[in-house]
Amino acid sequence: MPVDYSYNRYLQTTRTLGGTKNADPDHVHLSFGFPHSDLFPIQELAEAARQATLEQGRKGLHYYGGSAISYLPHWIAGRLEQIDIRVPPEQIKVTVGAAQAIEIAARILCNPGDEVWVENPSFFGALRMFRLAGAERIRSFEIDGDGILVEPLREELERRAQMGEAQPKLLYVMPNFQNPTGVCLTVERRRQLAELAQTYGFYILEDDAYMELNYSDAFEPAIHTFAPEHVIHIGTFSKIVGPGVRLGWAVVPPVLLKYVQQFMSGSQTNPYMQEIVSSFLQNNDFQSYLDRIRSQYKAQRDVMVAALLQHFGNVIEVRLPTGGFFLCVRFAQPTDVSELTRLAERHGVSVLDGSAFYGNREGRNTLRLCFTYSSPTEIELGIQRLAEAYKQLRSG
Amino acid sequence: MPVDYSYNRYLQTTRTLGGTKNADPDHVHLSFGFPHSDLFPIQELAEAARQATLEQGRKGLHYYGGSAISYLPHWIAGRLEQIDIRVPPEQIKVTVGAAQAIEIAARILCNPGDEVWVENPSFFGALRMFRLAGAERIRSFEIDGDGILVEPLREELERRAQMGEAQPKLLYVMPNFQNPTGVCLTVERRRQLAELAQTYGFYILEDDAYMELNYSDAFEPAIHTFAPEHVIHIGTFSKIVGPGVRLGWAVVPPVLLKYVQQFMSGSQTNPYMQEIVSSFLQNNDFQSYLDRIRSQYKAQRDVMVAALLQHFGNVIEVRLPTGGFFLCVRFAQPTDVSELTRLAERHGVSVLDGSAFYGNREGRNTLRLCFTYSSPTEIELGIQRLAEAYKQLRSG
Repeated sequence: MPVDYSYNRYLQTTRTLGGTKNADPDHVHLSFGFPHSDLFPIQELAEAARQATLEQGRKGLHYYGGSAISYLPHWIAGRLEQIDIRVPPEQIKVTVGAAQAIEIAARILCNPGDEVWVENPSFFGALRMFRLAGAERIRSFEIDGDGILVEPLREELERRAQMGEAQPKLLYVMPNFQNPTGVCLTVERRRQLAELAQTYGFYILEDDAYMELNYSDAFEPAIHTFAPEHVIHIGTFSKIVGPGVRLGWAVVPPVLLKYVQQFMSGSQTNPYMQEIVSSFLQNNDFQSYLDRIRSQYKAQRDVMVAALLQHFGNVIEVRLPTGGFFLCVRFAQPTDVSELTRLAERHGVSVLDGSAFYGNREGRNTLRLCFTYSSPTEIELGIQRLAEAYKQLRSG
Repeated sequence: MPVDYSYNRYLQTTRTLGGTKNADPDHVHLSFGFPHSDLFPIQELAEAARQATLEQGRKGLHYYGGSAISYLPHWIAGRLEQIDIRVPPEQIKVTVGAAQAIEIAARILCNPGDEVWVENPSFFGALRMFRLAGAERIRSFEIDGDGILVEPLREELERRAQMGEAQPKLLYVMPNFQNPTGVCLTVERRRQLAELAQTYGFYILEDDAYMELNYSDAFEPAIHTFAPEHVIHIGTFSKIVGPGVRLGWAVVPPVLLKYVQQFMSGSQTNPYMQEIVSSFLQNNDFQSYLDRIRSQYKAQRDVMVAALLQHFGNVIEVRLPTGGFFLCVRFAQPTDVSELTRLAERHGVSVLDGSAFYGNREGRNTLRLCFTYSSPTEIELGIQRLAEAYKQLRSG
């Protein structure tokens, strides 16, 4: 009777890290989309946790929370001004990671049979969320180096309007440092997507998880700025504090607030954890902490690119991402990346077969590599092992 | 397009506490189902939070968590032996409060159109969860002083079996200190329900949120013990540590584990918070802490009963609960409890109109009063104000 959803390799790999397989300390994990453990602000959070408990515990340990409940949306609103989003804190709903924001958006906007449109490739975790939320029909649209291609999308919307067919309910887009490609959506395309949403009456779920991990200092205005009433903009503390705090947020158009609220009051966000993160933000210099993270991730990205060029040369194409967690490697010649991934695992490095991200699992000769989780030394070792696996694949 | 679910008074009241209305410090809240703020183990948690961050932060701040991920299920398994549940820790899934356990059970077991059976009255929060999860069809069965009446349930199951009609997917029962009535299900009825679940192939969702708040020391075996493969038994840290930690659990039959797992990996439970609670449990004497809470709640219950008898005498009937958070007051004569609730609010005390818990909102002259959240002095003041409101109702 229960619905069966297939798991993907990535989640299996993720689980085994907490368990027993691949617990070899020498194994290099370039598959996870995780922050670097050494960059967690352990000392600062330990003090924040202690202080938040002492000062806000009598309220924070209840369902309704203490001062963080108003402080966090206020803080988030301030950060969003970097990308020209100006909303009152009341429109910002703190969620159980960005994942819950995605889930709630799908559950309030999609009825069974409704369509969700996504980028191709796109983050499979989000696609799983859509399916679990009952939005089984997912349609993918190609991206290039400037993000999702708007024309095919416009044509399909126009065609459906003319034919009187149902339009999608939701378009899921990662505008900055897209997972897995690392590309950014141009401002012009952002504007165009916003206009299409207004014309055809769908919502855009703008997943901006990596917004703060920008290695170029050039911030572009969010899609939200062009159609605030048609965009749910989401973000997360996972990349800037730690995934373990399970706190994200959604900027919710006023008309949707009451529907979102319904889903918040059950599996509601952790008020005590909000106090801890709030205390951390209030008692530390967040910007200099963030600058430290960005600078290290940027250096790790460069180490990975250099290692890839050294070991692979013209065999691969790599686009240098200006932010985020990931590099997308494309093999110039047809390559069995699925087999390569298996071989790499045996050589002591985990990488992610790009096919997990494509609607039809075609893969297209790509691998996703995460440059944030591992140290520069581990990255160099990992790429070297990947090169050995590649040699074996070619010779096999 | 979004589905509209009506809010109930309770949730509105809950929200205003965090906001501005009823922030009058002199107002007495007997409506909330909350623990007492003074009993939160603030000092112990502050130290546990600091220590957990320092010792487990590098893992706990990732998605997959540190040592708590295995410790908590182990600890829970130990506590469950009090009610004769003996399961391996692998069957215990830590959730975002008991609420997520209810939500996941409904989402994996119910398709649209499926029926959920509940007690009448029952906890409206759970009923909301069922509806949000798509299980719109809810049927209520009466309870008496020994819990849900088994015969009407058996008759309906038999009738449907004979007619070839669809059976319910889920029976939601609170076996101990039921919310709102405070009654316990007899062992004989537990056994009978378990047999019916086996015979007719439905699942029992056994919500044992108040299990540890037992003021009599007499533990009865769980329904789970009579049909472990047909019962999802759920519990929570909300009543024994604090709702703000948002951690609960479900004992999941092996055949359902993989379906439950799917919903865990998205809006997953907070690994960092699990480390904090785990550290608290490992470094403190939980049983003596719990004994302190139970002894104070028992005393508060007695204060409330004494005040009710003093001010209302034969006007009401009260059943003394042997555990949990709540007293259910029934007026011997037909009484407009809805109007009484409004008047009480103006007299400075919040109580909960019993109609929120009944399937047809009939109410039946009942009020639910929580004796845990307020101090003895506040309880006496609150009941006195309730009596004044009652006098005004009678004279009006």
